[in-house]
Amino acid sequence: MTYLTKAFKQYFILYLCHTDIYGIMQIDRPTLVIDKQKCLRNIERMARKASQNNTLFRPHFKTHQSLEIGEWFRPFGVTSITVSSLDMALYFSKNWSDITVAFPVNSLEVDKINLLTQTNRLNILFENFESVQIIKDKLIYPVGFFIEIDTGACRSGIAPNQYDKIDAILNLTKSNANLTFKGFLTHAGHSYACKSHDEIKAVHTSSVDIMDELKVEYLSVYDDIIISVGDTPTCTRAEDFFAVDEMRPGNFIFNDIMQKEISTCTFDDIAVAVACPVVAKHEDRNEVVIFGGGVHLSKDHLIQADGAKSFGKVSLAENGKWTCPLVNTYVKSLSQEHGVISVDPAKMNLFNIGDIIYILPIHSCIAMNLMRTNWKVL
Amino acid sequence: MTYLTKAFKQYFILYLCHTDIYGIMQIDRPTLVIDKQKCLRNIERMARKASQNNTLFRPHFKTHQSLEIGEWFRPFGVTSITVSSLDMALYFSKNWSDITVAFPVNSLEVDKINLLTQTNRLNILFENFESVQIIKDKLIYPVGFFIEIDTGACRSGIAPNQYDKIDAILNLTKSNANLTFKGFLTHAGHSYACKSHDEIKAVHTSSVDIMDELKVEYLSVYDDIIISVGDTPTCTRAEDFFAVDEMRPGNFIFNDIMQKEISTCTFDDIAVAVACPVVAKHEDRNEVVIFGGGVHLSKDHLIQADGAKSFGKVSLAENGKWTCPLVNTYVKSLSQEHGVISVDPAKMNLFNIGDIIYILPIHSCIAMNLMRTNWKVL
Repeated sequence: MTYLTKAFKQYFILYLCHTDIYGIMQIDRPTLVIDKQKCLRNIERMARKASQNNTLFRPHFKTHQSLEIGEWFRPFGVTSITVSSLDMALYFSKNWSDITVAFPVNSLEVDKINLLTQTNRLNILFENFESVQIIKDKLIYPVGFFIEIDTGACRSGIAPNQYDKIDAILNLTKSNANLTFKGFLTHAGHSYACKSHDEIKAVHTSSVDIMDELKVEYLSVYDDIIISVGDTPTCTRAEDFFAVDEMRPGNFIFNDIMQKEISTCTFDDIAVAVACPVVAKHEDRNEVVIFGGGVHLSKDHLIQADGAKSFGKVSLAENGKWTCPLVNTYVKSLSQEHGVISVDPAKMNLFNIGDIIYILPIHSCIAMNLMRTNWKVL
Repeated sequence: MTYLTKAFKQYFILYLCHTDIYGIMQIDRPTLVIDKQKCLRNIERMARKASQNNTLFRPHFKTHQSLEIGEWFRPFGVTSITVSSLDMALYFSKNWSDITVAFPVNSLEVDKINLLTQTNRLNILFENFESVQIIKDKLIYPVGFFIEIDTGACRSGIAPNQYDKIDAILNLTKSNANLTFKGFLTHAGHSYACKSHDEIKAVHTSSVDIMDELKVEYLSVYDDIIISVGDTPTCTRAEDFFAVDEMRPGNFIFNDIMQKEISTCTFDDIAVAVACPVVAKHEDRNEVVIFGGGVHLSKDHLIQADGAKSFGKVSLAENGKWTCPLVNTYVKSLSQEHGVISVDPAKMNLFNIGDIIYILPIHSCIAMNLMRTNWKVL
């Protein structure tokens, strides 16, 4: 065989390895796998709740960051979306014309706002006077803005009793006709610290009460304002959204071990897993090593009941999908490319070198962000 | 102004924002910034140590994953490199012809090995019999292999006393003339748990002793074998490498807060920082919010003396570089795009909305992996 023939053969083999022939891509390295049917079920459930409550469903696309997956929302009537950066808004602006950037506006990126608002309906977020001062005179086209309220997450947003700050922003924005006040927005991220459905519902109720009070306070002056709420735990677990005009959950499309931990989903609702090759097996300490590390799964972890860190749950392959995760088996540590799995001693025989196993991630948004160039749909 | 003129103007502004005109790129979003002079100093120091010990310097390129940065090693005589995956080897094979993949061979990627070995000198890593069984008859071209030894890190590798496992691998590989035994390789990753220079040196000594004993044991049969060691803490802190044939540190080019924590570098040796815009300021709780989250810095963290998690140290901008990090000021939490900084109350006045500040990452390899599409060199 000549050198060129050999070279061609090898490149062709490599091409086949990475090509989805007949819809079945051979997985040979860490690959995020998405169960589309589960995603559609998760979307349908949230869309129905929004519809039943007469609430606008504006899903957060930071979870998947994919134009292709974004299209899965169309059949459920979704026409407006949420993102977490102006670059993400630019990416999605190809297919979506109504976008809210649910992140305190970065005043250094005003040129991107001007670019987006040429063709798109864009809403940005103010939570301080200074940002408005910096950007207001640089805006060329109309842009909507929300005022972010901190209902208890203590990340960003104005505390609800700080009317002076809210009024300062509103007064300053009046001087630019391109700025339209759309209402109040919050992300009740403290729901992630809840331990029960009742706690999650309590976060929801208190958060919505705060937002509703603000809306009522300002409705006499701004008659079109709305309130927008966001996190997956409250949007999944709470039932009453009649006071809520808009909901922006994101993670629910995939779910993950964190959501399972706070019981906002079942294992069966988790729609993504990272498929990883088994590369080593250490019987003496009941451990398996996978090709799958911090650059694939992220260092997000949970502390288990026994105090040990878990960087993911472990499932086996079954009929081209993944099984329910194994008990007493978890990712105990991650380095850049290695993952070490602590295996239930009785289950060591289920793991063989050269197998593909599936890791259910602790945080699917971050895992998807890491695997943006290498995912496949079941 | 017509619509088209406006559109052109905006696209041109955006082009300018992202273009490195006159070598000064305006930073408007999280951007990993690399101080090339510090990198060269860090490389020079390690290259000198290798040279003084008559040890081959085969740096690990997983830290930067960049062909451009890889070229910075050439003036120091580097001609052979280490990577952590076959895909990374394929990427670097454009410029580098002698590559070791320091990761237990993934038997599912044998086609990539065949592709690489058409044109490159490639070394792979065996740490179990099963992987050899799966791939040995599929190899088309010559490939070198190391046997990985676990000198105490308990991640991957064969325990040094398991001669039966080593012999089984060596016997099996004899049947394929394409396989050449190169020696023993270890990554003494337990050095990262050390609390002092002496502890790091002790890890180095015990690790090298184990490796040297193995080499002596097999030298009578395999007269060209070498021992290869790898982690940055021992390569930085230990002095005696005369028994070591090859060293493969990676992180040392950048260093990070983790290396500083175990005192293998000073703050001044840290050659990367993530530049982040300040988007909010909460005086009431002495916090600043940055555009810079888990997708930019990773969730790697350290536990501080007071028990609080730190996801990075905080420096200010000064003459186009960053200052020594501020005391009592650190990244206390990260979500996908938000970072919350706990600020020394006396220093809140140093932070203003719209500023760019610099976060020194806990783990530079992982931060660089996240920022591969958005970094700049000072």
